[in-house]
Order: sequence, then C-alpha cells, then structure tokens
Amino acid sequence: MPVISKFFEPDSIAIIGSFREGFFGSHVMIKTLREAGFKGDIYPVNPSYREVLGIRVFPSVAAVPAGIDLAFIMVGCDTVPMIIGECASKGVRAVVVVSDGFAERNEKGARLQEEIVDIARRAGIRIIGPNTAGIVNTANGFNPCPYEAGYSKIKEGPVAICSQTGMTNPQAYPYADLGYGISKICDFGNKCDVDECDLLEYLGNDPATGVISMYLESIRNGRRFLETAKRVTPRKPVLVLKSGRTPEGARASASHTGSMAVDDRIFDAACRQAGIIRLEKFSELFEVPKIFALQPPPGGNRLGIVSYTGGVGVLATDEALKYGLAMARLTDDTAETLNSIFPGLGETPVDLGPVAAARAAGFMDLYPRVLEAVSADGNIDCLLNIIWSNSSAGESEEIYLNLYRKLKRNCPKPLVTWLYGSSLANTARLARKLEEMGFPVYSDLEAAVKSLGIACRYRIQVRRKGGNVNDPCAD
Amino acid sequence: MPVISKFFEPDSIAIIGSFREGFFGSHVMIKTLREAGFKGDIYPVNPSYREVLGIRVFPSVAAVPAGIDLAFIMVGCDTVPMIIGECASKGVRAVVVVSDGFAERNEKGARLQEEIVDIARRAGIRIIGPNTAGIVNTANGFNPCPYEAGYSKIKEGPVAICSQTGMTNPQAYPYADLGYGISKICDFGNKCDVDECDLLEYLGNDPATGVISMYLESIRNGRRFLETAKRVTPRKPVLVLKSGRTPEGARASASHTGSMAVDDRIFDAACRQAGIIRLEKFSELFEVPKIFALQPPPGGNRLGIVSYTGGVGVLATDEALKYGLAMARLTDDTAETLNSIFPGLGETPVDLGPVAAARAAGFMDLYPRVLEAVSADGNIDCLLNIIWSNSSAGESEEIYLNLYRKLKRNCPKPLVTWLYGSSLANTARLARKLEEMGFPVYSDLEAAVKSLGIACRYRIQVRRKGGNVNDPCAD
Repeated sequence: MPVISKFFEPDSIAIIGSFREGFFGSHVMIKTLREAGFKGDIYPVNPSYREVLGIRVFPSVAAVPAGIDLAFIMVGCDTVPMIIGECASKGVRAVVVVSDGFAERNEKGARLQEEIVDIARRAGIRIIGPNTAGIVNTANGFNPCPYEAGYSKIKEGPVAICSQTGMTNPQAYPYADLGYGISKICDFGNKCDVDECDLLEYLGNDPATGVISMYLESIRNGRRFLETAKRVTPRKPVLVLKSGRTPEGARASASHTGSMAVDDRIFDAACRQAGIIRLEKFSELFEVPKIFALQPPPGGNRLGIVSYTGGVGVLATDEALKYGLAMARLTDDTAETLNSIFPGLGETPVDLGPVAAARAAGFMDLYPRVLEAVSADGNIDCLLNIIWSNSSAGESEEIYLNLYRKLKRNCPKPLVTWLYGSSLANTARLARKLEEMGFPVYSDLEAAVKSLGIACRYRIQVRRKGGNVNDPCAD
Repeated sequence: MPVISKFFEPDSIAIIGSFREGFFGSHVMIKTLREAGFKGDIYPVNPSYREVLGIRVFPSVAAVPAGIDLAFIMVGCDTVPMIIGECASKGVRAVVVVSDGFAERNEKGARLQEEIVDIARRAGIRIIGPNTAGIVNTANGFNPCPYEAGYSKIKEGPVAICSQTGMTNPQAYPYADLGYGISKICDFGNKCDVDECDLLEYLGNDPATGVISMYLESIRNGRRFLETAKRVTPRKPVLVLKSGRTPEGARASASHTGSMAVDDRIFDAACRQAGIIRLEKFSELFEVPKIFALQPPPGGNRLGIVSYTGGVGVLATDEALKYGLAMARLTDDTAETLNSIFPGLGETPVDLGPVAAARAAGFMDLYPRVLEAVSADGNIDCLLNIIWSNSSAGESEEIYLNLYRKLKRNCPKPLVTWLYGSSLANTARLARKLEEMGFPVYSDLEAAVKSLGIACRYRIQVRRKGGNVNDPCAD
C-alpha cells in the first residue's frame, strides 16, 4: 500500500493535541470519528490527560503500545517539529498537520514549515498540511473533522472533493444535506508535501472515486500536474476551480496558504491539454459533479428541453449553445404524439405553458405522457426538464416522483432538472426527493444546463482520445 | 392620469372569463384579488353565471352598471376580438388579454393578434398581452394573479419586475419568501401593444419604484427604448436580462412570444449607451436589485472583505476585480486594532480562520469588534462579509443579529453577506433574518460580489453623467 493510502485507510491513528472541549480541536476530532463509525484504533497523545471520551491518553507518541498508521498533529506551531521527530522515531509514515502559523502567517512560519518538511523527508514521512481541516473517507467512516459540524456521517458515493482550503470540509459544507454521495474529501492546506498531484494520482486509482472536483490556489509542479492529469482524465472527469487568477487574488492567496502565483493563461492552456474541466464558481465544485455522480453518460450532445414556461426555454436554449449542446429536433413521431396532446406542443423547447393553462387541473394527467415521449425520442441524447412546482405541489409531487421513478428504470439518457415555483419550501422538498432518487436538481437554470454541457463535452473528449468510455461513475 | 396607470391603479375592473374552479383562471383571479386586499370594484362578466365567490356576475361588459378602468380577458382566443369590441363600446381604455393562442401559436394566431390591435387602436384602448400572467401593484393590494400561488400578499418595496414571460409572476416566483419588497410586477406577454418602453416610462416616473429589473426576449422599438432608458437610468438603475441571444434561442423565442430577433451586439452597445445594466442569469433578476432595494449607495469602489476562510477571500478578490471593485487597504489604525486582536489579522481580505480556530468558543466575543473596526475604516467604501454559520449556529446567531442591528444604525456603507455552513437549515434561517433586517444575503459568493460591483458601477455612472445622486431606493 503506498503511503498516501494511509491518509485515507489507516488502521490506527494517533491524535496529538490539547483535548480541551470546544467547537474546534482534538476533542471534537475523537467525537466525530467515533460517531462516524471509524473502526480503527485511536491513540490520543497528551502528557496532561489520562483519558478522553473514555479512551486512554498516552503521554507521548513513543508511549503508544502499537504501530501508528497516521498521526494528526494539533499543537502550537512551534511544537510541531518536535512531534514530527517523535513520529519519525515511532516509525509513523503519514502525518496530518492541522496546526496553523506556518508559511501562511509570516517569515518565521515559512522557516518552521521548511523545518518540518526537512524532518519528514529524512524520515520518509509524508505530510498533509499544515493549516488543514483534514480528510474524510466515507467508505470506512473515517471522518476526523476537527470542527463541530453537527453531523458526522456522509453518504458514500463517487465524488471526491479536494481543496486548498477547509471551506469544502464537513464543518463548512452541508454534506449531510446532499442527495449524492462522496468518496473522499481532502484539504491540502499549505501543501508543504502532499499536493494536488499526489491526490490526483491517488484518486485516479481509487475505485470508490468516479469524479474529482478540486479547488486550487496554486500548482506546486506544473509539469507533473499536467502529466498526472493526462493519465487520469481519460478515466475520470477532473474539475478544477482555480483562484488567485488576478494579481490581487494571488496576493491574498499568498497570505492564505503561502502560495506562489501561476499565470492564469498558462494554467488554462495546460488544463485544455490535460483534459481538465475548469470551473468558474465556488458552487460549481459541488453542482457540476452531480451529473457525473448520478446520471448515465450522454450518448451525444442533442438536448431536449421540456419547460412549463417558454421564457425559461429560451434562456436555456441560449445557455445550451454556449456550452456546446445542440438543440434536438423531435422526430416526426414524437412531434405527432405531442401535437395530438395539444396543438403546437410538438416543438423544442417543449413549452407546457399553453396546455397547462388550457387544461388546468386535468393537465397533470397529461404531463407524464409528454416527458416520456420526449425522453424516448431517438433524436434526443440528453434532457433538461424544467418543473413548475405550483401551490398545489402536494398533489402533483407524487406524479413527478412516479414519473421519475419510471424514467430511472427506462431512460438511459442523462436528465437534469430545474425547479421553480411560488414556495421555497415546496421546491426545496421536491428537489431533495428527486436527488435522493438519483436525479440532479440545480439551484440555477444556468448551472443545470452547464453541467449537462460539461458532461457531454467530457464524453466527446474521452471518445476522441480513445479513453475508457465506460461510465466512470457506474456502480 | 395616463392610460398606462389604469393597469396598475384601477378603481374598477371587469373580469371576463369562465369562472370554473381550478388552479388557473378567472375564478382564481377574483379569489387572489380579494385576499390581497384590493379595494376597487370587481365586475365578473359571463352570461352563464349569476354569482361567483359571492359577487354578482354580469352577462356582458355592456351590462356592467358603472365605468370600468381595466378589463381582464380570459376567454378562448377566437372570442377575444369580440370582447375587445364590447370593451370599446363601454369606454374601457385598458385591457389585459390573458388568453393565449396568438402570435406565439401560429399564423392564424398572429392574424388574430393583429386584429385585436386594430380594434384597440381605433378605440383608443391600450392592451397588455396577449399571453400574459398579468400585473401586480403592491401599493393597493392589486394582485390579479390568474394562477393559484399559495399566497396573495407581497411585501411593498422599491423593486419593479417586468418580464416578457409569466415566470416572474407570483405563481412562479416565491415573492412571499423574499426579504425585500416589490413595487410592481408586469408580464408583457406577446406585447402586441404595451411594451418595455411603456413600462420603462411608467416605472421611471413611479415614485414607488426605485430599481427596475426586466427580462426581455426582444425590443419592439430600439430607438425609443434607448431614448426612454437614457431618461430613466440617471434616476433609477435599469437591469436587463435578454435572451434570444443565439439564433436557436431567437427561434425558440419566436414560438414563445412571437418575437423578432435583435442582434445581441447591437443591443449590447445600445445598453451601454443608455446606461442599462445587463444581467447574465435568471436568478440575477431578483438577486441584483436587492442591494439597491436594501442598502445605502456606495461612496466609492474600495471593497473590504471579512471572511472566516482565506480561500473564499481569495475567490472573492478575483471576482471583485472582475466587476470593477478595488481591494481596500486598511488604515494603519484599523490594521493595528485587528493585529492587537490576533497577529496578522490586520490584512485585507481579513481572514478570521486562524483566530477562530485559536480562540474557539471565545471567538464570538471578538467577532463584533472585527467587523465594526473594518466597517468604520475610512479606506473602505463597501463591504463583503462572509459568515460561517457553524453547527452551534443558535448561539452565534444572536451575536450576528445584534451586530447587524448596530451596523444598520451606524454604518452608512453598503454591506453584502454570503453565508456558508454545515447545515442548509441553519444558513437559510440566518439569511432570512438578516434580509428581514435589511441586509441582502446571497445564495452565491459570486452573486454577492457582482451585486456590489454593479451598485458601485451604477453610482459612478450616475455621478459622471451628473444625474440625480440621491438614493433611488431611499424610503
């Protein structure tokens, strides 16, 4: 097993910290680990404690009476070199330094960071951090979150989130509220050692991971990143949001994680070469992977749209072209079926507005026939369904859910959904139910279309390069 | 009173329709109007009914025993010309044609639309529609929504929403859930007569409206639109989302509202000339006006950022520059104050991460001091506050609310907020409370920054052109 695996699949961990109660720290970490169901051995280390949360505390790393796969260090930054030294003597090979006060703080911190890298390198130790909120592996209940998040269990699934910040870790993002599942989470922190390349390599080979979503402020080794990404992207989509694009942003990044700037145009060209998909917004780190996680890959880029309102259909059409989708033309058969339901309905985007108004309450009996006809159309590769969740949502909700259940069995095409309506509570409830069923629902119309566009573009890219076209997110 | 005012301020209305119960139609319209508290006279018209919802129904428009300021027509499209003829005989000057089946449907419908325009023009009648979900005026409880929306009352405020689609009307957008207030809503529909220029003119002079947000698929008269906008934009911000930008989108638009395409580059140049602010996404129709509605105008473009996480601070910095904001440098005094709270805190973006982790529970006592110091800094014109709503949100929530209450009294600078955290329910609750207090909270980091950027850009534009720099949204 390569050392990097020990960060995610340790059988035994040491936690070196203060064990004070509070919303942050080693005490919280132990609590969260136990609640998440981690089955490995936990060795708290602190000379001033004898027991924490019913677990024996050891006075030093050396005193732990067994091997340690992974150590978490959460002590004042000045003490970190000494602790890493103790870890070296103990034969520990993987260390997460949660502590901050290193290169992101000042010159002195930068020197301290160099010192721990030196110690680690001599001892064959790999470090994640410093200045990190850590790691999650959903497969083994390994959630050593150092912050009180209000939950500890995260649904298993194919999406890996790596980030040069703690803002994608469990304390900062509502993973418990998501409809799709996560494989791994990793905050690189200052990435004094383990970096985006190591993670990309590891996640590229991780069978539990089907899509990799990354937030980066810098690239440590451009050439290696490019080479690694080239190997991974034909097998799994790699999505990257990079900040520090402007000089002011780069300056802010330097004092956040002590990062060096990289010219954004060069980075962009490299991404294109390596097949990396660049993201533009923070929310896309979570919204774009959904389609890869939940839906089958598109067979082509011909988009069918069904909408309760023509206006949104027009907006969606503009967006679709922007992201490389083509507007499908319905087959004559489908057009005929739809026109027999209501005159003029057999056009893309399929505009339900007139028929909904004309048939009023009776319309919901027709609705499933429309969506089924469109989804079965041979001219359509992928679908955007725009649902109006009206005030009598309770009544129509069951119809939507039954229809989607049927599509899940019968429709091998990716389907994204945007919901709008007169009540936030109603739309949120229906969105959640559809996502739990395996259909991605987007907060923005534009995010829905973009995600579908990205999924198609990835598919085409993989085909062109002769990569493995099996669904990277298949069960 | 110009005729156009009768659409929003009628003393008496006729509703010509079927009065069948259901989620759409004239029956719903009467119900909604009464629940919303409309005090004018309502005259239902239908030869087959004698009473609906306790109101007397008249067999024809002619039979109504009083003058009619405004008529709503909701009958089959073929009958619409006849009814408009009856309205003409009765001396009605304003008609809303809710019915569809006109230019958006087919050639026959297009001819029918020409016919009603002819009849109306000869009689001096103005028409909104056909194919429209209608109008709202919050000032007089005038909400003749023809769809069951689940609510009828909309908070009064300065934001006017006009749209070439019903998707911004009460049945489709959760106005009851919004923190800011609305002045008028209008769906132009096919805009066979009253169009975006008429609305712009009317809303430009409407004292209840401080900011105008429009969705358009086409412009009926480019020159007039430009001239009207030039008069309005120095007094009130005009925000426009235009679809049908691509040929495919324009084609979809033709079958939605029977619109003619307009070259997007020409439209863009015209907007710039006229001081119109272009939007890019559907959600921005509602998210961007919030800052104009709720916050004081910025004195300049120097942005201060306070964030719980450095990573988001870096992203926000990149975005800020994109929208013309400049990163503020703290005054020496503020830097000193912050550095005395925690070493290194006195830098923009102000990164609370390290101090929050170090002080843990005690941190919330420091928090107000940080935000107050930054908001009072003379080098800062406007503020982005990024709040981490942690799992113990209940405890910190009161601290945030008290602090914002204080800022509302003391801080004359615009402040936008982005919330993130481990629970959707917690972040949504705090967001709602802050918005109710008058502080715009955004669903996306990028939307928060962009809104602030747009507010600054508008302010600068108004100053440069010597327009009225009084706050257009002041009470």
